[in-house]
Amino acid sequence: MASGLVEYEEAAPEVRAVYDDIMTTRRIDKVNNFWKALAMHPPTLKRTWESLKEVMAPGALDPLVKEMVYLAVSTTNGCGYCIASHSVAARKAGMTDAMLGELLAVVGMANETNRLATGLQVPIDEAFRRQG
Amino acid sequence: MASGLVEYEEAAPEVRAVYDDIMTTRRIDKVNNFWKALAMHPPTLKRTWESLKEVMAPGALDPLVKEMVYLAVSTTNGCGYCIASHSVAARKAGMTDAMLGELLAVVGMANETNRLATGLQVPIDEAFRRQG
Amino acid sequence: MASGLVEYEEAAPEVRAVYDDIMTTRRIDKVNNFWKALAMHPPTLKRTWESLKEVMAPGALDPLVKEMVYLAVSTTNGCGYCIASHSVAARKAGMTDAMLGELLAVVGMANETNRLATGLQVPIDEAFRRQG
Amino acid sequence: MASGLVEYEEAAPEVRAVYDDIMTTRRIDKVNNFWKALAMHPPTLKRTWESLKEVMAPGALDPLVKEMVYLAVSTTNGCGYCIASHSVAARKAGMTDAMLGELLAVVGMANETNRLATGLQVPIDEAFRRQG
Amino acid sequence: MASGLVEYEEAAPEVRAVYDDIMTTRRIDKVNNFWKALAMHPPTLKRTWESLKEVMAPGALDPLVKEMVYLAVSTTNGCGYCIASHSVAARKAGMTDAMLGELLAVVGMANETNRLATGLQVPIDEAFRRQG
Amino acid sequence: MASGLVEYEEAAPEVRAVYDDIMTTRRIDKVNNFWKALAMHPPTLKRTWESLKEVMAPGALDPLVKEMVYLAVSTTNGCGYCIASHSVAARKAGMTDAMLGELLAVVGMANETNRLATGLQVPIDEAFRRQG
Repeated sequence: MASGLVEYEEAAPEVRAVYDDIMTTRRIDKVNNFWKALAMHPPTLKRTWESLKEVMAPGALDPLVKEMVYLAVSTTNGCGYCIASHSVAARKAGMTDAMLGELLAVVGMANETNRLATGLQVPIDEAFRRQG
Repeated sequence: MASGLVEYEEAAPEVRAVYDDIMTTRRIDKVNNFWKALAMHPPTLKRTWESLKEVMAPGALDPLVKEMVYLAVSTTNGCGYCIASHSVAARKAGMTDAMLGELLAVVGMANETNRLATGLQVPIDEAFRRQG
Repeated sequence: MASGLVEYEEAAPEVRAVYDDIMTTRRIDKVNNFWKALAMHPPTLKRTWESLKEVMAPGALDPLVKEMVYLAVSTTNGCGYCIASHSVAARKAGMTDAMLGELLAVVGMANETNRLATGLQVPIDEAFRRQG
Repeated sequence: MASGLVEYEEAAPEVRAVYDDIMTTRRIDKVNNFWKALAMHPPTLKRTWESLKEVMAPGALDPLVKEMVYLAVSTTNGCGYCIASHSVAARKAGMTDAMLGELLAVVGMANETNRLATGLQVPIDEAFRRQG
Repeated sequence: MASGLVEYEEAAPEVRAVYDDIMTTRRIDKVNNFWKALAMHPPTLKRTWESLKEVMAPGALDPLVKEMVYLAVSTTNGCGYCIASHSVAARKAGMTDAMLGELLAVVGMANETNRLATGLQVPIDEAFRRQG
Repeated sequence: MASGLVEYEEAAPEVRAVYDDIMTTRRIDKVNNFWKALAMHPPTLKRTWESLKEVMAPGALDPLVKEMVYLAVSTTNGCGYCIASHSVAARKAGMTDAMLGELLAVVGMANETNRLATGLQVPIDEAFRRQG
């Protein structure tokens, strides 16, 4: 209802151009449902893809770390689609069972201690205060 | 009101034992407010510290990656105390400005695309479905 | 398990009265599953409906804006049921594809910049501080 | 900026009527800042107070349990104001240090296991499925 | 993809030992999918179970209250698996329809007023401020 | 600690170029702390500003509606900085007290009913199901 999925064959040229760039950049031969759904609003499709391409490129952090951070955030937010797709992406980037196990252990502990610190209204230590 | 901070001098032996282990493990000479606040309930102090020590130890993921994941989750949840303390911890573990910049860029994009995928009710691709 | 759905035919008089008011107010001939589930606790059904009727009525904001705000919040929280039902409601109130596209773009950007501001511990500008 | 606080002396009659009912019901002689802020929109003040009065009254659950649930939710959401005010309210209703310690331990564990279950995409057991 | 479910028959001895303790402690004859999924990382399985066993044991709060708090947090976070499993657990611990109705009413109101307090940037009353 | 604020005078040319565009576009003579903090990572500063400029421009939705949606999301997430800055921005775009009151009433109700629908595990009505 919110939107349908725009297949390549029926896509407008501006949408096809984004699909083509996604497939070329990622060396794949079809795009995920996420992009097909975003295509209902071509400016958002284009902007989101270009931002994501820039942000997820190798840099000071390597792509596997970035994929694991993506998975950590998606897990914290409970986004089912994102967990499914980024679990696969992280696996492709080299994540092992042991790495996933430790990643989720950290995500779980952080969610737990976030609430302990918040619920106890713990004042920030002087040593942690921001320097302007 | 929720609790006070338990200083080492006034702490019960079971609390002191945890403080001592924190200081020894982390090679520091005083504990953060987080632990002093948790000490209002000694079983939670002990259990939380032991879990955290196990989870944050080097393993399949290195400590810097674990600290950055902690920061990513704390940022997503908006825990001010945790962001302040884990920003410092990540810096100590080697996080540079460029790494922090990329980390927050990924955290921001994940939070954005989580909502795009959710709001558009994107169906999970067959290829991403869980294998039992 | 948590509850079943209470159909009109089996509903107690106090529940039927609420169902009748929902159908009359919204000019529809059956109520959604949300109300049928809430009917497991009649006081919550009645209070929730009366609050919602008051809050969503035309006022300083028009009903379409209210429906889009509802959808923005439901998307941020990841409530699948609410996204499905309020997407339909917003469409009925006049939301076009272009409006949905822009709405989700704003929702996505807000979720992204919320974390950038939080993760960087940005101090509130003096100009934004609350006047008492 | 978002709003100021409406003091009793300057309040319109409809606002004073709500303030009076709050003070009478709770046997206190002044209202909290929460109500003074809500008074910037009298219909929201009145509706919120009436709902809260109904919801927090003794019933199948006793007031202390209700206050602790309120604190659990506020802690999960990270609402600083709400944690501060409901910590005090729960103390007044009889919450001891040991009870607060156990409450936060449960809140922390639930936040942790919520993410473990979500991140691992655990399928719901047949035995837990909802019966219609 | 993220993980499979480890059945008892195929489980390593360290995993079986945890399964055995879960079944003995809870007087049941098979473990939930949650534990079978966690078993992909045995240290997390063991640590999580031991923490949960300690936290959910009777203490200053009774087990029914703890189950309801768990359900309140899981509902706030939108964890479908956790809501399904803890709804059943709370029922087993004695939660009636009326108790569930009141519980969700409190959870709903807390989520509502958390945002009203936050959105209006309500300053914390002096009387609620934390004493060090 | 996480970062400092980069003032115009000390900013690198690529940062100044963004600051200049912000000031020109918004017809203001200095940039907010948010941008000064983001400047610690120039690529994120530039990408975020360009995305925001595109997303918040007048389109199918007018700027006041967009600002109110931003405020609704920021309130739901509890981002203090964002609530402070977008409350001011919404006021400048024409938001009255009555509009803010109704906006927060909708935000509050949506947060409440999101949890009622989720906690009761309400199945999505056939009529709301997505058409592919």
